[in-house]
Amino acid sequence: MTANFCNNCGHAVEHRVPDGDHLPRAICPACSHIQYFNPRVIVGVVPEWEDGRILMCRRNIEPRRGLWTFPAGFMELDETTAQGAAREAMEESQADVDVHSLLAVIDVPYVSQVYMVHRGRMRSPHHGPTPESSETRLMTEAEIPWDEIAFPTVWHSLKYFFADRAAGTPQIHTLSLSRKSRDPRHQEVSTGEPLSSF
Amino acid sequence: MTANFCNNCGHAVEHRVPDGDHLPRAICPACSHIQYFNPRVIVGVVPEWEDGRILMCRRNIEPRRGLWTFPAGFMELDETTAQGAAREAMEESQADVDVHSLLAVIDVPYVSQVYMVHRGRMRSPHHGPTPESSETRLMTEAEIPWDEIAFPTVWHSLKYFFADRAAGTPQIHTLSLSRKSRDPRHQEVSTGEPLSSF
Ligand SMILES: [Zn+2]
Ligand SMILES: [Zn+2]
Repeated sequence: MTANFCNNCGHAVEHRVPDGDHLPRAICPACSHIQYFNPRVIVGVVPEWEDGRILMCRRNIEPRRGLWTFPAGFMELDETTAQGAAREAMEESQADVDVHSLLAVIDVPYVSQVYMVHRGRMRSPHHGPTPESSETRLMTEAEIPWDEIAFPTVWHSLKYFFADRAAGTPQIHTLSLSRKSRDPRHQEVSTGEPLSSF
Repeated sequence: MTANFCNNCGHAVEHRVPDGDHLPRAICPACSHIQYFNPRVIVGVVPEWEDGRILMCRRNIEPRRGLWTFPAGFMELDETTAQGAAREAMEESQADVDVHSLLAVIDVPYVSQVYMVHRGRMRSPHHGPTPESSETRLMTEAEIPWDEIAFPTVWHSLKYFFADRAAGTPQIHTLSLSRKSRDPRHQEVSTGEPLSSF
């Protein structure tokens, strides 16, 4: 992830370590603007209906089209992580969700992402398909398709959610995923630039 | 935060909502590249020496030069939040810190930042000034200069740290800061683009 041209003035950039910095950056020799590239936050929520079922979405977009997830996507400017999670729930599943507590913080360094997954309560039973989700479905724990989960972050978050609920002790879980330690079928994939892929 | 020119090909960008998206983005009409701007993660650590004192740094850079903080700065690509916090400790205070647990997740939506603050143990008593810190000092709780803390995120994190330690129950705290609810002297300030300001 870097830049060829200055996004301020359009001049070709140079890559070098700025004074007082420690890593090479994309620096504009014409206007001195520096472009930084930093990890991105993915905000998600496990939406729970009052009968205990949770809302799952079948991905209608790459990567992992056809596999299942709860609503999650890239955090936007000017919002909190909880606001972002509620926005994603509406965009991906039409669900109005009260996002109420943090469930898991998961580092995915090999794609420079941090997942912040929340618990949420559906304010109404309404949900439905969207451009991002070909199908949305309320599921009991027994109905979760564990072998068809889109990402390991989602898989781990769901395990945390159900374990905490069974124990009656909601917690905030932290986890770092490493590429090497996972079954290749369960690798996170870099989504590159397109935000819309989440 | 936006772009005037494409950082891929240098052409002037247009600002419009891409197909399937929901917010205006900087789109290149020449090469179709889209530039996204997302919130940034600030990783920090409260470094504790074996006698219970914690390591504080006096900021040598704007904003809030001269005020006190624990090591914290922008998370970089390809690292975990804990790795980033350890890196910041070394860069800002020369301290070798074993970052071992998450202490606080703090949303600061009005500057599009998320703080991830950790607890850490200093592996040696060594610490010292750096370009970013004019002075570093091990402090007891009674010595913390509460009226000279650089940012409310730092102030709240320190309060959480000492409260948990007194109670013997380390937790992960979550907080959203709102501009309106804070004393103006304790406002976060937007640092704009320069990463080195943290
Ligand atoms: Zn420029
Ligand atoms: Zn272009």
